[in-house]
Formats: sequence, C-alpha cells, structure tokens
Amino acid sequence: MTNPLHVDVPEGLPYLDYAREFDFPVAEVFRAHQDPALVTQWLGPRGMRTDIDHYDFRSGGTYRYTNSDDNGSYTFSGVFHTVRENEFAIQTFEFDQYQDVVSIEFMTFEDLGDGRSKLSGHSVYPNLEARDGMASSGWKEGMIDCYERIDELLSKATA
Amino acid sequence: MTNPLHVDVPEGLPYLDYAREFDFPVAEVFRAHQDPALVTQWLGPRGMRTDIDHYDFRSGGTYRYTNSDDNGSYTFSGVFHTVRENEFAIQTFEFDQYQDVVSIEFMTFEDLGDGRSKLSGHSVYPNLEARDGMASSGWKEGMIDCYERIDELLSKATA
Repeated sequence: MTNPLHVDVPEGLPYLDYAREFDFPVAEVFRAHQDPALVTQWLGPRGMRTDIDHYDFRSGGTYRYTNSDDNGSYTFSGVFHTVRENEFAIQTFEFDQYQDVVSIEFMTFEDLGDGRSKLSGHSVYPNLEARDGMASSGWKEGMIDCYERIDELLSKATA
Repeated sequence: MTNPLHVDVPEGLPYLDYAREFDFPVAEVFRAHQDPALVTQWLGPRGMRTDIDHYDFRSGGTYRYTNSDDNGSYTFSGVFHTVRENEFAIQTFEFDQYQDVVSIEFMTFEDLGDGRSKLSGHSVYPNLEARDGMASSGWKEGMIDCYERIDELLSKATA
C-alpha cells in the first residue's frame, strides 16, 4: 500500500505545494530527514546514488549532496533557517546547474495519531519561470520516489 | 544630494523589489553590508538602536540583530545562502513577531563606474498576505532611512 503524493501548482503564483501521509510515526519520518545516514538512502529518484557532502539538519545548518548515475551528476545545496524536532523546517534549495535560482521551502511534520503522520510542503520560487521549470522537470515523479523510499526504509527499520 | 529608493510592489505576486544608487564605489557599499561594526550604524530606521547578536555575512553564515527604542524592540534573524564579494547575496529574513513567516532576499551589488554603484533587491514572501503586511509596515520608509544612513556613514569614512 502506498500513500499518494498530492501536489498543487497554483496558476500565477510561484509556489509548489505538496502533501504526503505516512503509515509511520512523525518522529520516524522526521528522523529520516534529519539523520544523514538515512537521508542518503532516499533523497533522490530511484536508480540514482545519493552522496552527501554534509547534511546538518538544524537551525543555521547547511547541506550539500549529489545525485548521480551513469548519465551524470546533479548537486543540490542550501541552508536550514529553522528546524524544530518532529514539527517544522524551513530551508533554502539550489540546484547547481541553475546558480542563484534559490527557492525557500517550508515543511510541516504532523502527528496523525495511530502511528501515522503527514508531511506538507510549501516551496516558493524567486519567479514563475523558475517554478514552472521545476514543476516540469520531473519534480513530482522524483518526490513520489523519495517518499516511497522513505516508506521502504522505515519498513526495514521496524521489521 | 540623496539618491531615491525605487520600489515595486507587484500586483498579485508575493515580491517586493527595490533599487537604490550610491555615490560610492561598490566595494564600500558591500563592506557596509559585510562588516558588523558598520552594519550596526545603519541597519534600522533613524532613532532606533541596532544591537547585533551576530552577523556573519558569508555563504552559510547566520545573523541576528535587534532594533530598539523607548517603545519596544524588534528582532530579526536569518541565514546567508550565498555571499559573493562586491557582487551578490541571498539571505533569509524573519521578524520574530511573525514566527516562521520567512522571506528570501536576493541582493545584487553593481559597479556603475565613476565611483558609483547600485544595489537591487528582490524579496520573495511565502504568501501575498505576508508581502502585503510587510509593504504596509513602513518598510519603504525604513529602507530609505537605512540607505541614507549608509550614505552618511560612507561620507564620514571618506571625509
């Protein structure tokens, strides 16, 4: 069973919004975002390797990682403005092939009870063109992969 | 002589844009943004004190400062995603009375020749309400004060 990823690409506003439920407690989903040893196992589309240069998921921390396969490599970096355990994070996000086109992302981690949780995201781009480019880049498919990989990772951890 | 501050509050998009010329070289205007000993002399409206907790103007650095007068105090904080000397900076910005309403700001420093320079800014808010709130908060008047104070500071420095 897989929970769907809901996305919204609002007309005329430079946002990408999404929401995804997990059949795991909020603390486990949060930890999958916090612990680099876990992040490296899911942050990227299936079939790509994720090499973490550093991933310091705390207020004021920074991160940098590279997704790669035989066709090439793609590096992403940013800073964490706010991280509140099991609750909320704000980070910047930059793809090194589009220097200075930096988005800011708001992630809300929510306890749904019964060992379930929900992650909601609001990403804000510097202009509509950047948002449209991201939306048409395979972003949604990549996110679906990522969250299914979190499911698989947390299933293994609790198996 | 004072150079005007040009601002744009675009209808229906969560941005604040501005531009301001300076009769000083780009390196001096950049240094006024970089050196906390200078920042504390201009970052805030006239009549308010600026106390810097820390101000680490480099890629991956963070900042926190407080404007205060007899009526109260206002604390601002964020992270610097990118800082390129005499050229460009990206930072986040949060006013502690509106927790988690964080904007991202892009600042371009430009050499105009003849010892003159231009600073252009593009601030992006998480939603239109936050942008509208900022636009009607005295933001423009505060910015005019700040940049006139930079003029005065650099005039003294080169006097």
